[in-house]
Formats: sequence, structure tokens, C-alpha cells
Amino acid sequence: MGLLETIDSPDDLKQIDRLDLPQLAQEIRQTIIEVVAKNGGHLAPSLGTVELAIALHYVFDTPHDKIIWDVGHQSYAHKLLTGRRDVFGSIRQHQGISGFTRVSESPYDAFTTGHSSTSISAALGITAAKQLKEERSKVIAVIGDGSMTAGLAYEGLNQAGDTHKDKDLIVILNDNDMSISPNVGALSSFLSRTFSAKRLQDMRREIGDFLKSLPRIGDDMYQLAKRSEESFKAFVTPGMLFEAFNFEYFGPINGHKLNHLINILQNIKVLEEPVLLHVITKKGKGYAPAEKNPVHFHGCGKFEVATGECFASLDTPPTYTKVFGDTMVELAREDQRIVAVTAAMPEGTGLTGFAEAFPKRFFDVGIAEQHGVTFAAGLASEGLKPVVAIYSTFLQRAFDQIVHDVCIESHPVIFAIDRGGIVGEDGATHHGLFDLSYLRCLPNMVVMSPKDENELRHMLKTAVQHPGPIALRYPRGTGTGVPLDDKTAPIEVGKAELICEGQTPDDLLIIAIGRTVEEALKARRILNDEHDLTAAVINARFVKPLDIDLIGSYAARTPYIITVEENTLPGGFGSAVMEALSDANISGFKMKRLGIADVFVDHGPQKLLRRLHGVDAEAIVDAALKLTA
Amino acid sequence: MGLLETIDSPDDLKQIDRLDLPQLAQEIRQTIIEVVAKNGGHLAPSLGTVELAIALHYVFDTPHDKIIWDVGHQSYAHKLLTGRRDVFGSIRQHQGISGFTRVSESPYDAFTTGHSSTSISAALGITAAKQLKEERSKVIAVIGDGSMTAGLAYEGLNQAGDTHKDKDLIVILNDNDMSISPNVGALSSFLSRTFSAKRLQDMRREIGDFLKSLPRIGDDMYQLAKRSEESFKAFVTPGMLFEAFNFEYFGPINGHKLNHLINILQNIKVLEEPVLLHVITKKGKGYAPAEKNPVHFHGCGKFEVATGECFASLDTPPTYTKVFGDTMVELAREDQRIVAVTAAMPEGTGLTGFAEAFPKRFFDVGIAEQHGVTFAAGLASEGLKPVVAIYSTFLQRAFDQIVHDVCIESHPVIFAIDRGGIVGEDGATHHGLFDLSYLRCLPNMVVMSPKDENELRHMLKTAVQHPGPIALRYPRGTGTGVPLDDKTAPIEVGKAELICEGQTPDDLLIIAIGRTVEEALKARRILNDEHDLTAAVINARFVKPLDIDLIGSYAARTPYIITVEENTLPGGFGSAVMEALSDANISGFKMKRLGIADVFVDHGPQKLLRRLHGVDAEAIVDAALKLTA
Repeated sequence: MGLLETIDSPDDLKQIDRLDLPQLAQEIRQTIIEVVAKNGGHLAPSLGTVELAIALHYVFDTPHDKIIWDVGHQSYAHKLLTGRRDVFGSIRQHQGISGFTRVSESPYDAFTTGHSSTSISAALGITAAKQLKEERSKVIAVIGDGSMTAGLAYEGLNQAGDTHKDKDLIVILNDNDMSISPNVGALSSFLSRTFSAKRLQDMRREIGDFLKSLPRIGDDMYQLAKRSEESFKAFVTPGMLFEAFNFEYFGPINGHKLNHLINILQNIKVLEEPVLLHVITKKGKGYAPAEKNPVHFHGCGKFEVATGECFASLDTPPTYTKVFGDTMVELAREDQRIVAVTAAMPEGTGLTGFAEAFPKRFFDVGIAEQHGVTFAAGLASEGLKPVVAIYSTFLQRAFDQIVHDVCIESHPVIFAIDRGGIVGEDGATHHGLFDLSYLRCLPNMVVMSPKDENELRHMLKTAVQHPGPIALRYPRGTGTGVPLDDKTAPIEVGKAELICEGQTPDDLLIIAIGRTVEEALKARRILNDEHDLTAAVINARFVKPLDIDLIGSYAARTPYIITVEENTLPGGFGSAVMEALSDANISGFKMKRLGIADVFVDHGPQKLLRRLHGVDAEAIVDAALKLTA
Repeated sequence: MGLLETIDSPDDLKQIDRLDLPQLAQEIRQTIIEVVAKNGGHLAPSLGTVELAIALHYVFDTPHDKIIWDVGHQSYAHKLLTGRRDVFGSIRQHQGISGFTRVSESPYDAFTTGHSSTSISAALGITAAKQLKEERSKVIAVIGDGSMTAGLAYEGLNQAGDTHKDKDLIVILNDNDMSISPNVGALSSFLSRTFSAKRLQDMRREIGDFLKSLPRIGDDMYQLAKRSEESFKAFVTPGMLFEAFNFEYFGPINGHKLNHLINILQNIKVLEEPVLLHVITKKGKGYAPAEKNPVHFHGCGKFEVATGECFASLDTPPTYTKVFGDTMVELAREDQRIVAVTAAMPEGTGLTGFAEAFPKRFFDVGIAEQHGVTFAAGLASEGLKPVVAIYSTFLQRAFDQIVHDVCIESHPVIFAIDRGGIVGEDGATHHGLFDLSYLRCLPNMVVMSPKDENELRHMLKTAVQHPGPIALRYPRGTGTGVPLDDKTAPIEVGKAELICEGQTPDDLLIIAIGRTVEEALKARRILNDEHDLTAAVINARFVKPLDIDLIGSYAARTPYIITVEENTLPGGFGSAVMEALSDANISGFKMKRLGIADVFVDHGPQKLLRRLHGVDAEAIVDAALKLTA
């Protein structure tokens, strides 16, 4: 019987001998690898934090003490240690546990996460509340170095160090890009674990002074530090930066040496001031394929454990992402003005090819969507054509920048919004279900969504030629498999496409947008074949401006209208159709809007979620039968 | 004839003898004071940057070199120097020049601003574009120390120093809180202005090394620096922080000594690397009342120049802001769970009384709306009742945090959204015209808006008792003057109020939300008196959930419906009414939605803008007559 099997809660963990903990880490890694190989998931991040999760639960009194895992995709070991061992195999499956932390899932999940860089702010809120309630418990935010690039993290740090005495706040910087030079790390690690907390602090201060004085000591040391600008920057940054924010800084220490980790956490636990512990970890630690390719295994599909080979079949249609990326390269060859902006997602948004072909025209701004959009507005103000490729859910971060920096002056910034609609296993924090609503309410903004990957190509061309802000929203996953036209040709902005006529007078009009066009066509076939009902189908193409001429002309003679969208219903596409018809004084029909009914959508397979939330062909058929009954 | 009268562009400025520039500064100050005394405006910030504006245009080749004034409310001197002297008297007036910078207004306004902290990102976009186009010009972002607390500024700095060699980027930190100790400032100023650029850099490096080594030199110096934690922090922060970001740091220097400023700008101009110049200025400089009370004169109404006395009459009804603030104090006395969060706006949001009465329960997070909301979610997760008071337009910054950190887990965070609707003279960047749309599309969110300041009180009570996220949106300015109930009583969530019956069968139904209820009642009187038309009027109270029972029962028997809102029409309140009626299968009426017709609204008096954009009583009357004709 393994050690992991004995652990139903952190109390059980605390019974294990420290010397046996590396064995436990090994078992946890094995479990994570096996389950992710079957379910897909965030393998590399979670392998990097196995020791950290063990040490934290070993030292702290969770759930009384609270751990907030920033993003939450590195929390698998934490889940295994906190009563979810038995259900761990269900991770990311429909009705199984989430791949992120969820307050509703466990008292050990102190805050619901999914988007980056929220942990410090949330932790501060919790410590401030506890102070007011005159309660004490440690609140620990575990945040990656990547997440530290987001302004939100900085805003949190700024308050933490400045306005409060958050004596129970501990921030753990989980640094996995290894930019710290080994010597400094080793020195610091040595110091951090050898002394008592008090002594440790004194020592650390002395060392701090010593380090601060380094440039004067001699050219050798100075040159050594200067040699790599990167390492110098990292050397200056963590300590001094966090001390400028009034944090007590410890580290960097090796995040995979359990004994060291536990020692230093025990020392830190008794301090009464905001502490920042800088821990160096390796993404994918302990699984060779993931260590070798942490980007691929950051979030991955199913794979074979022995080899790390993916199971994804190669003969499926290309993804929207890939078609977008390829079209970007193609268009950029013809048009020097095209530049690309991504927020730490060159692979996810399909821009690696672009980055290789046009390195100077490619800008990865890090996890900084706000900045990415304002930066793009600056690029556009100089006549360039920036394509800002950000997932729908993450673009929410830049809402104000879209309004204020792009739309007011109508700068021609192109928003390539991947993962619009239901994304699947990442769940509630990641579905892109609000973009049609939050974008179409903005003056000067054009919002379009292609029915398939071929139309995406033409829409990207359309976007590049459009003189104002324009959003192109497309779904996660493979395209429909249609042939791709060699040449791209712009679509007239605001022109919808009538795909199928109905009968005269038309029985039914289905107006669909984006990937729901395919569902509408399926539904039309079923209605035709099985129910003797002939529907006209319009591919709206543009949520804004809506083609009221085409839609209105059909609506005026149709008794029944169904709109369908993979977006929330309030303020969405169907709502836009109603507004336009009302403004055009067209009435006298019965209408049903299909879309997501004002709820957050859980995790699960896209197909199943589409079924459950009524945005597939079957739902359209049901609605049609009910409406025309 | 004064000097200012000779200046039609920066070319004219460059003809003036350096010795005469202080005289020019004096004239500019006088002009600004006189005009703002008449028009209202951002007096203190603009008085603080008179010398900076002169020096920048004296040294740099604008508009070829570009200046981006962060926020833009400090740009009055810049406007006077760049061809807008003749129209300066029209600032903030309808069809006059803007109180912020506007690309559409002048080629000297390099970027449109209004919200804080966008300047570095925009400047980076411009420098990156220029590099690609192989053009050269300096791009200067002038950003206040307050704006530096926003994550967006940090994200911009992070990219500036990291991924690019932005050799033409200059960031000027306009530091007006005087936290730097005078000695350090004087030393640095001395060094910065005495030597040539090359020598200056060498010296600065030496000095940098000297400063970095300070703690070792002796206890006196160390203690001196340490004495005030604030000053120590500031001492560590600017230099080291910005150097960690790979900026060359200069300063701090006195921002009112024109000769020094010009010397150092001339030196900086020839450098080819990202430069940060730290300038100390005084808000309100040169006008005693503003120097004494820079918070009041930050953005102020009309006043008497000689005394600084405001002209605001005292017998008008209290503002919504004041009633909100007073009610907060009242409710917080009864309910220990209530805490308040503001983002650098304690005065503007009416929370100074609360802050005085409950200092521990008051959190000013700085210009950090994102953090403020996630912080509030943390507070709420511990059982507190955080009231996040942020203006409508600034809450846009926290959209993702509202979705992700508040709504998904349905944390009971209360959003007190002041300045919803048309705000007046601050113009397009500041109107709160999107909140009903961007909030009502979020699951779990309740959105309400009071018809008057008395209802605001009851709604705040409602909010405090509500177990989930809830937004309370109210307008800028004075209330309607209704008597205020002594006791607050919660309103049932989702219950609208029928204010006036119509006739049977009703001629017309007007459904209004927020301050438009007053307009609807006025319109009803006019329709009754002058047109023999009797309208039923419903105060919707809740945009979400909408009271479909009440609204539906009237809509079902009314041939004509008008909705009215001070929000953009796409996805707004009227759209919500249409959705609800459609979902309830209620049809057979003609409907007109009144609201802002999908455009950005310029600056001007609220009343005039309401007239022009058709959201006042007159517009309702017109719509009613047209609809029923």
C-alpha cells in the first residue's frame, strides 16, 4: 500500500515521517501523470508544485490557514492531499472535479481561480477581513513568475506592502523560468534553511546589504553580475522589488527539496509581516517528456505515458487556431502593416509561425491583456494593423482598454478572439460566453464570427481592410473540414449570407452566428427530413452591424424566427436581432432565442455542454417544433 | 502685449529667450486660473505641469516628437502652447475643446486620454510602430505618481524594459506627493543639470553605485534614509525599481525650475535608450487656494479667483454621492459587516465620512480598480459586506474581476456605481453609458438603479441584505430633492414600481430606469396636459432581474411601449425589456427604446446632452406622439 492511499486529509499527511515525503511526492507525480494522460490537463504546472503542495499542507494548518493557488492549474497535488484522492480520476470530466480550484468543491480551495494573477488581491481581502474579525490565520498566495507580469498582481502587491500591516500574508513566488543564477540561489538557499526565523532575518538583512553593495566590491563581481543582463535584472528584481513593497523577502530556494522547503516554511510561519518566499521550480518536474517540452505539456490532451506521445489523430480538420495562424502569415506577406500582439499565448493563439516568419512584427506582451490592447492602439495610431490575438475569456481583462483606447478614436485594431463560446474541460472560468454582449454595446466596434474555418480566412482579410476596430470571434477546436479557398477576399462589412431559402411563405427562419450555423444546417436537414418543415437559414456573419436588410426581408414574411448563438442570451446576438427588427418596425412573428441561459457553464466535453445548454442542432429542432406547434 | 499672445505653436515658443520663460509660465498660470474659475476643470493638476509643458515643447520637436499626457487633465498649458490659445476659453464647454487630450482635436495630442495609466503602453505602441517603419522621433509619456499605482502602467513598464530596445521612449514621472526627501532631490538635480549627456550618464552611474552602497557607509546616512519608512521606500523605489525594468533613471528634479528642466531634457533627448525622468511638482502650483487644497481643486466647479471660494449654491438638493455616503455611515453603524472599498476616490465617491467614522473598515486601494474588486471578493468570502464604490466609467477596468472573481462564486459584493449615465463636461472618456449592458449579461448579477436619492437609500439597504453580487447605479449630480425617509427598508429584489396607471385600455406604457423615471413623469404630465394622452409609468428599479410580472401585465394590454434609459441602446435596459417580453410570449405592441444611440457622447452640460441624445422628457413626448400617431 502506498503512502498516498493513507492520506484523506492534511492531518494524515502530517503523520508521515519527513524522510518518507519524497516517496509520497513520487506517488503523487505518478498519479497525476496517469490521470492527465487519460483526461488531458495541466500537467507541467502541477508536476512543478508537488513538493510545494506537500510542504504547505505539512507545515500549515489548512483549511484554517488558507492557500490560494493562482490560476489554480497547478493545484493537482493539493487536490490529491485534501480529500479528493478518490475522485481525482474524474478531473476535468463532466460532473467530476474541476481542473482549477473551486470554493464550491472543497473547503481547502480558499478561492475560485482560473484566470491569472488574482491570488494576492484575494489573499489580501481575506487577511483584511480576518483582521477586522479579530481572527488569525495565515493566508498564502502561490503565484507563478508568469502571473507576476499582470498588472493585477502588481496592484495587489502595492496595497499589501503599503496600506496595511498584513502580518498573516505570505506570497510564494513560484518561479519556474530559472532566470536566477545558480550561485545566488544556492547561497540564499543555504542561508534560508540553516537558521531560526529570527536569526534568519538578521542574516538575510546582512546578506541583503552585502548584495546591495556588490557593485563596489570589485570589477569581477560587477562584471559577473552584469554579464547577462537577464540574470542581473532577475538578481535586482526579486529582493529589491519586493522589499520596495515592504515585503520580507526570502529566497530563492529550490522548490523540489522537500526538507528545505519545510524548514523555511516553518520559519516563515512564525513571522508577523508580509513575507515573500521565492521558490524555484521546474515545470514538468519528474516526467522527462514534460520537462523537455513544458510548453506543450502546460495544458495538454491525452497522451501515452511511456513515450509522451499525444493521441490526437492527424486526419481531423485543422483547428480554427491553426487556420487563423496560417492566414496571418499569408496576409502579413502581402501587407507590411500587419503586426501581431499576444498576451503570453503564442502557441495557444496559433501565432508561432507568424513569430518565426516576422519576428520584428510579433509582440508577446506577457500576461498583460490591458497593456496589449492599449499598446495595439498605439501601433494602430501610427498606421499599422495590429491583430490582437487573445482568448475570449481573457479579453475580459482589457474591456476598458477596448472602450477607451481603441473604440473612442476608432483605431483600426483587430481582435482575433479565439475560444469564443463553450471551451470544454476548462470550465466556468474559461468559457467565452460574454464577448458578443460586451463587445456589441461599444460604439464603432464591428463584431463578426465565421461559420467555418474558410470564412475565418475571409473575415481576417476583411478585418485587415477595415478602417476601425473589428472583432473576429471563433471557437475552440477543429473546423468543419471545408476546403480552404486559396485566395482570401474581404466580405462586405455588415452583409449576412442567406444559405438556404425556406418555402414561400417561409415556415421558419433560423438566424445563426459563428459555429451555430453548422448546427442550424443540421437542424434544417432534420426538420426537412423528419418533420416536413422547411427553414430558411441565414448566416448572420456580423453581430454588429447586423444585416437588417436581409434579416428583415425574411423576418417580415416568416411567422417563426429562431436565433442561435454560443453566447449568453442577455444582450447577445439574439437580442441584437430583436433590437434591429424592432427598430425596423418589423413584427408579427414568434421568436425564440437560443443561447446560454444566463448561467455559468461547468466543465465537460464541448459536445455534451452544447447539448445540455441547448445550442446544438437538436435544440434548434426542439425549438422549431415547439414554436410552430 | 504678453508673451503668451505671441505663441501660436511651439515654434513661436522656441523663439522666446530662456530667461523670459518664467514670465510665460506666469501668464499661462493666470490664463488657466481665469478660465477654470469660469468653466470649472482640472485646475490643480494643470497648474502643476506648466513648466513641464513649456520645457517639453521648448526642447522637443513636437508634434514630430510625441507627448502623451497620462489622463490628460494636466494638459491645459500644453493646449495653450499648441495652437489652442484662442479657443482655450471654450474648454469643457459644449463644442469647445476637451478638458483632456484628443487626437481629433490637435496633432499635438498624440493619444486620446481620460482614464489613468494608459500613456506608457500607448507610447510603447508608437515607438514600436516607428521602429518598424524605420522612422525616428521621441515619444514622451508624462505620468503621475498616482497613475503609477495602476497595473496597466506596470504592464507597460515591464514590456518597455524587457522585450524591446525602445531607444526613443521617455517616461516622465510627474511626482506630486513630495515623498522624496529634499536632500536626495537636490543632489540629484545638481548632478542632472551640470554635465553633458555622456558625462551625465557616467556620473549618474557612479552616483547610482554610491546610493546603492549607502547602507554600508555609516549609520548616520542609513538612519537618515530609514527614518521615514515612506521616504525610504520612495528612495528605493524610483531608481532601483525603474532600473530593474532596464530604464535609465534620472532625478528626482524640481519640476518648476524651468532652466533645470530644459537642461536635463536637452541631455536626455540625445540618449538612445528607455529613459525615466523623475520630476517633482506641486499640485496647484502658483495659486494659493489650490496649493492649500489640491484635492478640492483637482477637478473643481466655478470659483472666485481672488478668494478661491466656490460658487456652488448651498440650497440645492444633496447629490446622489452625498446621500450614498451618508447612508453608508448610517448602515455601517448597524451592520459591522459593511466595509467600503474605493479606488483613489474617497471624496468623489462620498466616502470621506465613512472613512472618518470607520477607518479600519475603509480601504482606498489607489488607482487599482481590478485589484479593488478582487480584494472585495476576498473580503466577501470571509463574510463581510464590501461596498465597492467606483465610477461607472472606471469600473470598466474591473470587468474581468467582476465576472471571474465575484460572479462565478456569487460573492456578495456590492457595486456602488456613481456617475452612471451622462456625466457632463468630462466628455466621451467619462460618461457611464455602458454599465447596464456590461453588467446585465453576467450570471448571478443583480442590477438596480434608483429613481431618486431616497430610493437610493433603500436600494443600498437592499444591497446589503442581498446574498449575491449586486450593482447600484446612480447618476452624477444633485438628486431630485425628495424628502429622505428616516429609516431605510429593503426593496424586494426584482420588484418594479407602478407609479402611474394609464387609462383602460392604456394608451401608452412608459418603462423607465434610474433618473429617467423623473423624465418619464414629466413627459406624462405634458402628454396628459397638452396631448390628451394618458401614460402608465413604471419605475423598473431592477434592470436584472426584470419584473416581468408587472411589466408583462401592463405590456400585454398596451398598444404602445416606450422604454427609457441613460445607457447605450445595444444590450441595454430596453433590450432587456424586449428579451423578457419575448420570453414571456407577450407581443402585439409597438415599442420604442430611448437611450444613447450607439455613439460616444461628447462633453457639455448634462441637460443639453440629455436633450441632444434624446433621453429627456421632451424626447419621451416626441416618441410617444410619433408612436401613437
